[in-house]
Amino acid sequence: MRVLVWNEGVHEANNHPADIGEYYPEGMHGAIAAGLRRLLPDAEVSTATLADPEHGLTAEVLARTDVLLWWGHAAHDQVDDAVVARVEEQVLGGMGLLVLHSGHFSKIFRKLLGTTCSLAWRNEGEQELVWTVKPSHPIAAGIPHPLVIPRQEMYGELFDIPDPDDLVFISSFAGGEVFRSGVTFTRGRGRIFYFSPGDQEYPVYQQPEIQQVLANGVRWAAPGPGDRAVPEVSNPPRQWLL
Amino acid sequence: MRVLVWNEGVHEANNHPADIGEYYPEGMHGAIAAGLRRLLPDAEVSTATLADPEHGLTAEVLARTDVLLWWGHAAHDQVDDAVVARVEEQVLGGMGLLVLHSGHFSKIFRKLLGTTCSLAWRNEGEQELVWTVKPSHPIAAGIPHPLVIPRQEMYGELFDIPDPDDLVFISSFAGGEVFRSGVTFTRGRGRIFYFSPGDQEYPVYQQPEIQQVLANGVRWAAPGPGDRAVPEVSNPPRQWLL
Amino acid sequence: MRVLVWNEGVHEANNHPADIGEYYPEGMHGAIAAGLRRLLPDAEVSTATLADPEHGLTAEVLARTDVLLWWGHAAHDQVDDAVVARVEEQVLGGMGLLVLHSGHFSKIFRKLLGTTCSLAWRNEGEQELVWTVKPSHPIAAGIPHPLVIPRQEMYGELFDIPDPDDLVFISSFAGGEVFRSGVTFTRGRGRIFYFSPGDQEYPVYQQPEIQQVLANGVRWAAPGPGDRAVPEVSNPPRQWLL
Amino acid sequence: MRVLVWNEGVHEANNHPADIGEYYPEGMHGAIAAGLRRLLPDAEVSTATLADPEHGLTAEVLARTDVLLWWGHAAHDQVDDAVVARVEEQVLGGMGLLVLHSGHFSKIFRKLLGTTCSLAWRNEGEQELVWTVKPSHPIAAGIPHPLVIPRQEMYGELFDIPDPDDLVFISSFAGGEVFRSGVTFTRGRGRIFYFSPGDQEYPVYQQPEIQQVLANGVRWAAPGPGDRAVPEVSNPPRQWLL
Repeated sequence: MRVLVWNEGVHEANNHPADIGEYYPEGMHGAIAAGLRRLLPDAEVSTATLADPEHGLTAEVLARTDVLLWWGHAAHDQVDDAVVARVEEQVLGGMGLLVLHSGHFSKIFRKLLGTTCSLAWRNEGEQELVWTVKPSHPIAAGIPHPLVIPRQEMYGELFDIPDPDDLVFISSFAGGEVFRSGVTFTRGRGRIFYFSPGDQEYPVYQQPEIQQVLANGVRWAAPGPGDRAVPEVSNPPRQWLL
Repeated sequence: MRVLVWNEGVHEANNHPADIGEYYPEGMHGAIAAGLRRLLPDAEVSTATLADPEHGLTAEVLARTDVLLWWGHAAHDQVDDAVVARVEEQVLGGMGLLVLHSGHFSKIFRKLLGTTCSLAWRNEGEQELVWTVKPSHPIAAGIPHPLVIPRQEMYGELFDIPDPDDLVFISSFAGGEVFRSGVTFTRGRGRIFYFSPGDQEYPVYQQPEIQQVLANGVRWAAPGPGDRAVPEVSNPPRQWLL
Repeated sequence: MRVLVWNEGVHEANNHPADIGEYYPEGMHGAIAAGLRRLLPDAEVSTATLADPEHGLTAEVLARTDVLLWWGHAAHDQVDDAVVARVEEQVLGGMGLLVLHSGHFSKIFRKLLGTTCSLAWRNEGEQELVWTVKPSHPIAAGIPHPLVIPRQEMYGELFDIPDPDDLVFISSFAGGEVFRSGVTFTRGRGRIFYFSPGDQEYPVYQQPEIQQVLANGVRWAAPGPGDRAVPEVSNPPRQWLL
Repeated sequence: MRVLVWNEGVHEANNHPADIGEYYPEGMHGAIAAGLRRLLPDAEVSTATLADPEHGLTAEVLARTDVLLWWGHAAHDQVDDAVVARVEEQVLGGMGLLVLHSGHFSKIFRKLLGTTCSLAWRNEGEQELVWTVKPSHPIAAGIPHPLVIPRQEMYGELFDIPDPDDLVFISSFAGGEVFRSGVTFTRGRGRIFYFSPGDQEYPVYQQPEIQQVLANGVRWAAPGPGDRAVPEVSNPPRQWLL
């Protein structure tokens, strides 16, 4: 299984916030990739960022990627539309996609979902509690109920997304808001998992339980053998009931 | 439209808690019915309780009821199985059903859903915030976001229900728990709405916004003309493609 | 209620197929609008086509439209992207949308759904049987089971759409194929109904049962009072649990 | 993985129809088990029938069963209610369940679903075409589109079930009817797959593609490590937001 962790990398490059290098010495993508390598020893995990040529998302790279993780925030608009179209085509053709936190406003997520993906937010380092509401879902396997994140940005409803295929997690925050924090979708043959915890200001991706959710998500989203094919229009002859 | 508010009425009869008569001088069913009469002036609203002959749920009464509301808590086991079967048949045949609060453990709700309907609970009079997550749903029309309930029993996840057709509301509590507090189901031709706020210890059903949710729910659950028919097995001849 | 029937109108303008003027002397939009006027006497029904200035879809017109019906086939690419964006914004803000037949490949439908919307097709005038699988859905009210269309283009699975909110109708064709022919979605606050029967070569929109489905769909998709508002990002202060 | 194929075994015992012994020399359960052994070499596959003590479904047997397959038709009423309750408890606690063909009217399926599970039927040996409508679902992996069954009993809509979690297959029949022939549900922690093809009169379970669907279903329904636990009510103290 080949996994690619994509991070725009702008916060890291700008050292903003100032302590991001302390939380994430290898960048958020580095921390995420390290967690996946620990939990999915059979997977080949690599990383790419906005600054890479073609954002590190060439046609060749995408074609051999089973699951792509996407973190973006400050530079959604700088992602090339041609690259977005390429990612979209691969997802529709079966590549798994995990969209993380502020990636809710990424071009690729909004394009696949068809809604504004807007939400309520407040950044005061509140405690977040992540509750499992579908315990039989593979993504929830082994996750504590609740999963406690000591300090995190608040994301609250209304989260403007289509009804998800599965609602796996709901979060509450110290300020009283709630959020559908773990939701799955299918677009074409591709499985998509959105997971909201994780932010450039807090070391969320260093938490082992968060890493477990991401590893579960990667395993769940990976296409099976023979699963890669974009659905196409066809014009079959009359052949069944004659 | 004919609406029947059913309440087991045991808390009221036993004056337990002691101040229930202060919050609900006409019983919880009385308060609920009054709210519906105010908001649905074209509806004929009546009430029934466990102590009535056949619990007030004779075949004749049910056959002309468009929407039944169900509140039970202390006496689920005293509801006659024959009456439950009668209600079930009417729901499958198109009668609307609103199940309230501790009615999650009623025989009728568990029978229609097929799960344990268990949940987490704590009765410490915590603030509940009811957040709308499907604003286009008719049940959410005109409801504040959040709807604030000053003091209420906590109901928390995991709520063991099948995936609902629509998730309309999610609640959070002062203690940090979350709950899918407004969910819809279809069974046979019947529309079902479960709404968790409301308890014998707090005057929740006196809140105008709560009454609005219930009135919205009744309107949504009511069958249209020609909607009353239990689905039946059939053995049609070959008649279409010959 | 204000209803707008939009038809690209290219087949009609080109007299292609040659007998379209016989089936649809006022165009397909004319036939659809006539059916709606008959069944929804309280609605104000108007029509617009591709050839109209701004395709008849100015900001003013859309702002006061409750439900838009969309038929397109030969000229999807000629629909102005700015107009599509305008329609999208209104749907996300609560305007109802009915997408008809070959409209599955329209810009607006693909944008809102996020998939290819591809399918299998064959145009040999086969009998289509439309079976109701959710009889309690308002769109199915009064529709025969099956609804028989004597001659129609075959649309078959795989229909590359996201899982619908509700699957109302499934069709079979004389050649043996099946199709999810009546499906609903929500995007933002807007209710969307896709209905596949109807084609420029067959007088399907003249069938009273088909007109009934469309009238049911319009009533179902219409926003309630206060429903028009595009979901927006917000940054609320901490105000609930203090 | 431990798999148990349960068949009432009444048709086989009564040699009815007369040629059942020709199609199924080891009974339908024997054919199903053989297919699973071929495709899931790591699974331990056993069988049980109605005539076995406690129908072969003792508490011990069920506790160590990962996935149970259920075929019944002529003797639903003879299945002991205590055994049904035992199976129900295990499903709610995570055991996978595959319900086959006429098992739609079994006590266990109706209890878990909460509806009548009625349908239309006609037994004239018509061709059935099984179309995949969710190609990314693991149950559809490697299944032809359509899967052709030369002769089979017709099962048609309306199939009175709750909205499934996933609609994987839709069938059409030579007579023009359609049927949601492959559907999944979750009840408690248990994954349920209903698959309609298969009948005592036709050698459907000998078809390799049908066996592949069942093997896919077993793999999909099997609980993961730590997944076996019936959801229970709890009364947690206030401990998160203090």
